[in-house]
Amino acid sequence: MTTERKFVEELIEQEDDFDRWYVEVVRKAELADDSPVRGTKVIRPYGFALWEHMQAELDRRIKETGVQNAYFPLFIPKSMFEREAEHIEGFAPEVAWVTRGGDKELEEPWAVRPTSEAIICPMFARWVQSYRDLPILINQWCSVVRWEERPRAFLRTLEFLWQEGHTVHATLEEAEERARLMLEVYRDFVETELALPVIPGQKTESEKFAGALRTYTIEAMMGGKHWALQSATSHNLGDHFGRVFEIQFLDAEGKRRYAFNTSWGLSHRTVGAMVMVHGDDRGLKLPPRVAPIQVVIVPIWRTDEERAKVEEAVERVRGLLRDSVRVHADLRDDKTPGWKFNDWDLKGVPVRLEIGPRDVAQEQVTLVRRDVLGQRQAVPVSGVGAAIAETLEDVQRSLFASAKRMLDEHTEDVTSYDRLKERVAANAGFSRAFWCGSAECEARVKAETRATIRCIPFDQPERIGACLVCGEAGRYRVIWARAY
Amino acid sequence: MTTERKFVEELIEQEDDFDRWYVEVVRKAELADDSPVRGTKVIRPYGFALWEHMQAELDRRIKETGVQNAYFPLFIPKSMFEREAEHIEGFAPEVAWVTRGGDKELEEPWAVRPTSEAIICPMFARWVQSYRDLPILINQWCSVVRWEERPRAFLRTLEFLWQEGHTVHATLEEAEERARLMLEVYRDFVETELALPVIPGQKTESEKFAGALRTYTIEAMMGGKHWALQSATSHNLGDHFGRVFEIQFLDAEGKRRYAFNTSWGLSHRTVGAMVMVHGDDRGLKLPPRVAPIQVVIVPIWRTDEERAKVEEAVERVRGLLRDSVRVHADLRDDKTPGWKFNDWDLKGVPVRLEIGPRDVAQEQVTLVRRDVLGQRQAVPVSGVGAAIAETLEDVQRSLFASAKRMLDEHTEDVTSYDRLKERVAANAGFSRAFWCGSAECEARVKAETRATIRCIPFDQPERIGACLVCGEAGRYRVIWARAY
Repeated sequence: MTTERKFVEELIEQEDDFDRWYVEVVRKAELADDSPVRGTKVIRPYGFALWEHMQAELDRRIKETGVQNAYFPLFIPKSMFEREAEHIEGFAPEVAWVTRGGDKELEEPWAVRPTSEAIICPMFARWVQSYRDLPILINQWCSVVRWEERPRAFLRTLEFLWQEGHTVHATLEEAEERARLMLEVYRDFVETELALPVIPGQKTESEKFAGALRTYTIEAMMGGKHWALQSATSHNLGDHFGRVFEIQFLDAEGKRRYAFNTSWGLSHRTVGAMVMVHGDDRGLKLPPRVAPIQVVIVPIWRTDEERAKVEEAVERVRGLLRDSVRVHADLRDDKTPGWKFNDWDLKGVPVRLEIGPRDVAQEQVTLVRRDVLGQRQAVPVSGVGAAIAETLEDVQRSLFASAKRMLDEHTEDVTSYDRLKERVAANAGFSRAFWCGSAECEARVKAETRATIRCIPFDQPERIGACLVCGEAGRYRVIWARAY
Repeated sequence: MTTERKFVEELIEQEDDFDRWYVEVVRKAELADDSPVRGTKVIRPYGFALWEHMQAELDRRIKETGVQNAYFPLFIPKSMFEREAEHIEGFAPEVAWVTRGGDKELEEPWAVRPTSEAIICPMFARWVQSYRDLPILINQWCSVVRWEERPRAFLRTLEFLWQEGHTVHATLEEAEERARLMLEVYRDFVETELALPVIPGQKTESEKFAGALRTYTIEAMMGGKHWALQSATSHNLGDHFGRVFEIQFLDAEGKRRYAFNTSWGLSHRTVGAMVMVHGDDRGLKLPPRVAPIQVVIVPIWRTDEERAKVEEAVERVRGLLRDSVRVHADLRDDKTPGWKFNDWDLKGVPVRLEIGPRDVAQEQVTLVRRDVLGQRQAVPVSGVGAAIAETLEDVQRSLFASAKRMLDEHTEDVTSYDRLKERVAANAGFSRAFWCGSAECEARVKAETRATIRCIPFDQPERIGACLVCGEAGRYRVIWARAY
């Protein structure tokens, strides 16, 4: 075994420059790479495998609520895109336009979808005739494009991967119920699978989706600067789209009515959230439930004789695990064990098993957790399956618990505007404060501090105090923070 | 139970107008619908579920060969797209161009990918340094755009869904092996899962992929007009792309070399192929292995008392089946059993179970196969699991056998050019004939008959006769046919 490189190239430390740490860890862990197309990134196999595990689990949960997948065109003719006025106003500045097909100029430019309401609603209008056709519950996995010149992998790219759900209902109440149901699906998915604690709530009028009646959101706190990341949104669109796209149905009494819509999406931003919440100076820490590799086995040997015995043990342990967990044996012979430890730590694999000659002699493996520094545990080979199952569950729990602790420790009830300014300037985290509900107070804080109201949490106290800004009677307790 | 509509709207018969039958069956079975965007179609949930089952199985097979999924940008800057001269020449007439982002004109137009060699190869150039980095085996599932004004759902649309695999190798031999391996993966997938017999072979120089050294293909025969459908292709790109995109590596001796590439793709055209090969005047016949619904249960009752008993039996049978097959119970109460039979026949569900009061009394179900007209079989409830498993396998086999019979019956060894013309004009199927290998003879036949050489089958006879067109010494036996 050569000692070609003892250590993987080192990361910058989070404390020194969290944003640069993010860029480096994403690239060095091979989640994504820069692309020659301005504003975009390439998602590499390791990053895409993570997304695939997330997709599989979220897709299952979405389908369990009765939703079916479908696929709608990438392009939306300009006239169709412009039908809902608020919608086009909100999205126009970030749309990519196709103006030529083959050698011909198009008569009308086509938008590359930034979101698909404007192409799906005309289809709903065709499919919905009677109340018996409702509800329609549809989802699509695709990429969308929103013009962006300063990309940051997963968080903000010109093109990004997501799922977008679109539904049609007979009543506003049913649409409201669906919008809230899908937010809850997201909350549960993000907390259970990605180990990211979030605050579910409603967006203010100024922050809601262009064309929506109400937007719901889950907001997570990132590490480092403790900024917020909007992790998924769900919109009750009311009958705004139903009216402009003429989605009408005959109700049970034979009366013609406009239908109500929802839409809801979760994107690969959540990959970035996992990086920023769980990662440390050694690299990623991936939650076991979605980690592409849950257990890596690293053999340790010096002589050929040791190698044969060790590799035989590696093969046996891999055989014991491979039906129940995603296990990888790193048999590269041009890398040292130390280099491999660092490399798999960087890539965030939750559990490492080391197998050396002494382990072989004692019929054991050495188990090392990515999330607990310096802890090593000898496990008899006969008990390795049970130990791994238990450890993976514990890692998942402990990542969530750490993240929850960070969220709690960096959230403060703030009662003066000065204190809010101080906290925003110091990247101190979320500030919980009372708000009168006026757009003026909201805009003032945003202009003066660059913090925004991330959401009006569903969880409201019984008594609401005075507005932090104007001192008038408060209507809500809200979360102020800067956001990615 | 009302008798609102006894029969689903009838299809035109295949014999009367096969092309119109195709359009109607795709729409009425709810596989796809017209879209308001010229050249595109909307894939409805039933059609998309079919694609999802195909994807899952093909993805598994691709990964088994060591390939990993990734994701590359949708857009390719013009200058990058133009680097491989043959490639741009072949694709330029069908490219959609983005020229505006937000309010700004782009300095350089961006192609919406018609295929991704030109964006993936620059990344390969970055990732490949040493022979130790090779091979790189990557796949992506995405949509691509090729300008098309006269769409036909699944077969020819401006935007279509596919997977595209891209690999890099140290030697031409290894690239050749990979190109052939992936064609074999496609052949096995299409024959085993989609029940479509195909002829594997090589494309001629004039029919190969723009920029490839060699293109391999699997060609299937459609029903109706017995035209060919190219069902998947695999390309050995040689070092064409390696040289223009400078994909270089140091070999084991430290010498700098250009790398070799392959690419290979299978699209949702294969959905259209299943429709055209297996379908009949009553609608689709879906192969059980990929059918979204493998078994549909239709209850039959007149009185409320019967209804209660029958629906209880339906629930019991569904419970017995649902862990092993994709089963759906059609409990709609505004449709008659007859209407439902026709509807599920139209949608191609392989097996129908009818449960009426007499079935309940005798602890049985009535099993009806979609692919065998008029056959009804009583099966005891206790044996329903085994009967279904066996029947589904038999349906899969028998669909393949019918398709193979059609292919064989409509393939003829042709020894005169007049006979070839006759057969092409009569839509008689594939004509197997000797060819000298010259582009002139090939072009002449294409111009005079509109038939093309679909492939030079791998399966070649020991003795090759004289060229059908010029009478000179033949080099290959080829398949002539018109194609979709």
